[in-house]
Amino acid sequence: MGSQSEKEINRMARISMIGTGSVATHLSQALQNAGHEIVQVYSRTPNSATLLAEQLGCPFTTELTNISTCDLAIISVKDDAISKVASQLDCPIAHTSGTKSIAVLGEKDVGVFYPLQTFSKKRKVDFQNIPICIESNNKELLTLIEEIAKSISNNVHQLSSEQRKYLHLSAVIACNFSNLMYQLADEICTEQNIPFDLLKPLITETSQKIQVVSAQEAQTGPAQRQDSATIEKQTALLNTDEEKRNIYELLTESILNRS
Amino acid sequence: MGSQSEKEINRMARISMIGTGSVATHLSQALQNAGHEIVQVYSRTPNSATLLAEQLGCPFTTELTNISTCDLAIISVKDDAISKVASQLDCPIAHTSGTKSIAVLGEKDVGVFYPLQTFSKKRKVDFQNIPICIESNNKELLTLIEEIAKSISNNVHQLSSEQRKYLHLSAVIACNFSNLMYQLADEICTEQNIPFDLLKPLITETSQKIQVVSAQEAQTGPAQRQDSATIEKQTALLNTDEEKRNIYELLTESILNRS
Repeated sequence: MGSQSEKEINRMARISMIGTGSVATHLSQALQNAGHEIVQVYSRTPNSATLLAEQLGCPFTTELTNISTCDLAIISVKDDAISKVASQLDCPIAHTSGTKSIAVLGEKDVGVFYPLQTFSKKRKVDFQNIPICIESNNKELLTLIEEIAKSISNNVHQLSSEQRKYLHLSAVIACNFSNLMYQLADEICTEQNIPFDLLKPLITETSQKIQVVSAQEAQTGPAQRQDSATIEKQTALLNTDEEKRNIYELLTESILNRS
Repeated sequence: MGSQSEKEINRMARISMIGTGSVATHLSQALQNAGHEIVQVYSRTPNSATLLAEQLGCPFTTELTNISTCDLAIISVKDDAISKVASQLDCPIAHTSGTKSIAVLGEKDVGVFYPLQTFSKKRKVDFQNIPICIESNNKELLTLIEEIAKSISNNVHQLSSEQRKYLHLSAVIACNFSNLMYQLADEICTEQNIPFDLLKPLITETSQKIQVVSAQEAQTGPAQRQDSATIEKQTALLNTDEEKRNIYELLTESILNRS
């Protein structure tokens, strides 16, 4: 098996992409660039199906029953639709969801191919460093999924559905909630005629610091240094904005508990 | 005045550094690298004074009455100590606080020199892109402060004390609160035996995205797509951790209100 398995790592897979959202779009482009064949794109919306199929130069369908034979169908649709879509497919399948258990795919040969990143359609993404979390109920399929994952990323991890659920929760907190913080800061700056640009170097440094030191060590600011005078004044600045004040108080309390 | 004012922009200033914390340490090194003379370092703690003075190769004192003549004394001490320190100095002074009004420095020629960044002593910082927010009650002193600021940063802004107060609040939210989000995510990962490293590319991308699109446009995740099933499940995962669950609920609500 020696040289054969060596070869298999570089084998080209024939992949169907089920879904045309941000993840499906970025992922199918990355897979195609890595040399895999996107044999078909599916969306129940003809416009979406056409758009992605044109980008990839491949056929599309709006009927799941038309999905032809392939090595893997990647299901990248809304969480609630995964199960129904899966039940209509005959080929090996993997979903891309952070939250859904592998069990929603049924009893067949199934897997998970979860790229952990925040995708927007307009923004280019380099998959090389994106963690891809994989799982399968079948050893051969796991090997195939791993090979496909490793062909686009250097950051492939085998995770259980249980772990993935918590990883996704952590991602919501680290990414979506941080982005909300940027948004709240932006709103305050705009209201006070301060360019939000002033905060950008700080946002960059905060996210770079965490790459090399722990969040505990990286923390600074009034709550971290138990500066109750500043905390009180800043709370007062938010007196006319109940939502922001509640957030300020709760998060400050949380930093105080950890400092 | 033409060529003279041209020359004045590059004049070397004689600066005393009052304080030896993270801001004082990074700032005095940057000022010295830009060609200014740090004539003296002050700390009431002999060890701290010695340490920074040795790094800079300059004299130190632990008595404010020993501060000799200089173009500017930069006061980088705890917010609550600024006023008392300022009253004991005879030279032109500027503080580095984000929250304190210029008024706490008294009626003399005074100013503000606020570098907006998260400083940790151990971590190197490049001042070139750090916004420095300046203010003065005296036109000549404002010019001097502006020249000094521009000698180390390309990002110098004149802001009122009122604006600076709100900018600092925004910075706490965008930086300290985001870092708390990293910390909460880290805690969840550690508990579930998931390497926190998996989240690092996501954190980087989230902070890079905000450099080019608005936070509103950049937002993704369950709350943004009004995915109540995932929100409910993630809330349930936090049932044993009241603090995290409260934070999850409040911030999710806030994203829902904005989506």
